[in-house]
Amino acid sequence: MDDIQNISTMMRTMGEQAKAAAAALALASTDTKNKALLKAADALKKNVPAILEANEKDLEYGREKGLSDAMMDRLALDRSRIIAIAKSLEDIAKLPDPVGDTMAEWDRPNGLKIARVRVPLGVIGVIYESRPNVTADAGALCLKAGNAVILRGGSDSLNSSGAIHACLKEGLEAAGLPADAIQLVTTRDRAAVGEMLTMTGLIDIIVPRGGRSLVERVQNESRVPVFAHLEGICHVYIDKAADPQKALDVAVNAKMRRTGICGAAETLLVDKDAEATAIFTVGALLDAGCEVRGDEGMQALDDRVKPATDADWKTEYLDKIISAKFVDGVEGAIAHIAENSSGHTESIVTEDVDAAEKFLREVDSAIVMHNASTQFADGGEFGMGAEIGIATGRIHARGPVGLEQLTSFKYQVRGSGQTRP
Amino acid sequence: MDDIQNISTMMRTMGEQAKAAAAALALASTDTKNKALLKAADALKKNVPAILEANEKDLEYGREKGLSDAMMDRLALDRSRIIAIAKSLEDIAKLPDPVGDTMAEWDRPNGLKIARVRVPLGVIGVIYESRPNVTADAGALCLKAGNAVILRGGSDSLNSSGAIHACLKEGLEAAGLPADAIQLVTTRDRAAVGEMLTMTGLIDIIVPRGGRSLVERVQNESRVPVFAHLEGICHVYIDKAADPQKALDVAVNAKMRRTGICGAAETLLVDKDAEATAIFTVGALLDAGCEVRGDEGMQALDDRVKPATDADWKTEYLDKIISAKFVDGVEGAIAHIAENSSGHTESIVTEDVDAAEKFLREVDSAIVMHNASTQFADGGEFGMGAEIGIATGRIHARGPVGLEQLTSFKYQVRGSGQTRP
Repeated sequence: MDDIQNISTMMRTMGEQAKAAAAALALASTDTKNKALLKAADALKKNVPAILEANEKDLEYGREKGLSDAMMDRLALDRSRIIAIAKSLEDIAKLPDPVGDTMAEWDRPNGLKIARVRVPLGVIGVIYESRPNVTADAGALCLKAGNAVILRGGSDSLNSSGAIHACLKEGLEAAGLPADAIQLVTTRDRAAVGEMLTMTGLIDIIVPRGGRSLVERVQNESRVPVFAHLEGICHVYIDKAADPQKALDVAVNAKMRRTGICGAAETLLVDKDAEATAIFTVGALLDAGCEVRGDEGMQALDDRVKPATDADWKTEYLDKIISAKFVDGVEGAIAHIAENSSGHTESIVTEDVDAAEKFLREVDSAIVMHNASTQFADGGEFGMGAEIGIATGRIHARGPVGLEQLTSFKYQVRGSGQTRP
Repeated sequence: MDDIQNISTMMRTMGEQAKAAAAALALASTDTKNKALLKAADALKKNVPAILEANEKDLEYGREKGLSDAMMDRLALDRSRIIAIAKSLEDIAKLPDPVGDTMAEWDRPNGLKIARVRVPLGVIGVIYESRPNVTADAGALCLKAGNAVILRGGSDSLNSSGAIHACLKEGLEAAGLPADAIQLVTTRDRAAVGEMLTMTGLIDIIVPRGGRSLVERVQNESRVPVFAHLEGICHVYIDKAADPQKALDVAVNAKMRRTGICGAAETLLVDKDAEATAIFTVGALLDAGCEVRGDEGMQALDDRVKPATDADWKTEYLDKIISAKFVDGVEGAIAHIAENSSGHTESIVTEDVDAAEKFLREVDSAIVMHNASTQFADGGEFGMGAEIGIATGRIHARGPVGLEQLTSFKYQVRGSGQTRP
């Protein structure tokens, strides 16, 4: 089963099955989809021992392979983590169903009534790494939006993902939905990923979830459109008209609340006319245990500031490190961001509404903020309920990818016998 | 200049220039963009003799090459065609500017105000064939939506397109916009197209405009997302509850008004319980000079009906030919469409609202209609003002691609110093 030809056949068969399941799922009622989610949650709770047993196999495999402690932690499940996964399915069941929503409607002078109505996207391919919970979260979000999904988890979590997937299938079957609506790739062969990336016509969107090397490979190789962000080089800009306490609070939160998420700030820009606020804010970052790598101006403020190199302005640390630089007002900040940002999230701190509006208008990133921490760049914090990821592309989805972004639309035209002159 | 390496360098340079122009254009006011369009229209009217002279060169080249009469007609310009092109630019100037529109806004419990705001897509690549007017129409639509565009016209119309492009550049310059906002590829080498299709990171969307072989090549080879339809195998389904006169009017108009457009009907489906309406409608089609290729039931209705082969159900004739078949009610119609349609446009004729709503909900095509001719499948008829094409994909744009579909969006988040707990 492990040669390239067989992998290709296997993946394309999964694709055909997914496409057939998607056609059925597109017409499923909200109640039916919710029933599948709730029954899957029940199955997870009921099968805790079996899931833990499967997880133990993965952990053993990981120990033999010599995985790092961080990797092992990502992989490990316990009773409370499994209950949390079940809870997340119940939460997704509570979210409003986007399918069938009328996005816009208007009448034409000839009496035709036109409506743009949400429909599912179709088939979604999710490629992820070791966290087994993604199996449930991604599967459930795709299902709720009426899409079939092909999940390709990391080979380290194969047994755990398989046990969770069995529960999802149990939910689908209890609701009378096709089990192929959520399929899991069970080979460890990486050729399966390459195959998914070329399955145009069978997979409508690929969502990679994981580290930079996974996302980069997917973005470089995929023939199927991708919803992803390669990195989050997020900026906080402190304007001369910033309230110093807000500046400090936003900058410290944006960097330090959680340093490992894509919405964490990586660069602090300060107006050259806001030196006092710079001293105050940089001091607080240093006191909080953050390494600050600054330009000459920043180095002059505090002995603890280390010199930044050119590479620092384009580095996503995902750690307690921040680069810091003085810029020439909001124009200077916008120019620096245009050159160095990854297009994820940027925030301006200022009491000057004109400066704020200029920043919000001119900065070309998925999310632009005024007087708010970049750590709010998250589908849950946006009120979308849940997200499958954050996209920095410009096509279809940009920013948090929630249920609505996992849909397409069609036009319904209602007439009374109109013919075109 | 004509070897592959040089073409690659040339195209990538155009891509970089387009990207830089797009950044400027994204911030241009509506008035500035409209000024560029109106000044370009003026330049077209002023330069009629020069454009006709350039067109004469293309016609000469075409005659030498032995182009068909239809091809020569597509290529030919005269004074009134040039005035019509200028008029279309003036019409695009009158359309509302989508950039900056607030698509949605909501408040969060923590006081954050979130808005989803339209921004341009970025850089659009348009690949077309011999019609020189596409140079102006596509260039103008992209410009109005704030996008830079790289136009690659057919080699047959190179001189005409060049003369029209010069007028567009004159408009851009008069408005103080970068001339690189609308660039025209001037080499006849087809390698330029191949290069455009791989320019991810420089081109955001490719729009092919032309025949099936062009669209097929673009869809198969492109690494950049594509807005297109390969073909329009559109269906009209006449239900047993159809008003016979509406059925006849819609079917004849859908097929015969213009047979060469993508929204023209190619297959007529009739409920097996609507034989009288079938006789009436098929007779009218035959009387109007349409060839009807039918299943056995249809052949029994009228001597003039020819037998259909299996291939007919998946053929886009773009001619005075229609395939025709009896089906088992709306369910049968939906099943036939799911198997044979190209996902463009389908219409049901019925007075039974339940049957109509079932059809509108369950048929998975970009446009689904009730009691209306499929020939309304057009951005202008939808009230979008103008369209760059019709898309049958599920990502970003589906159905007519007008100004709104040529935009992306970003999130603006307004706070008062919020930090994430």
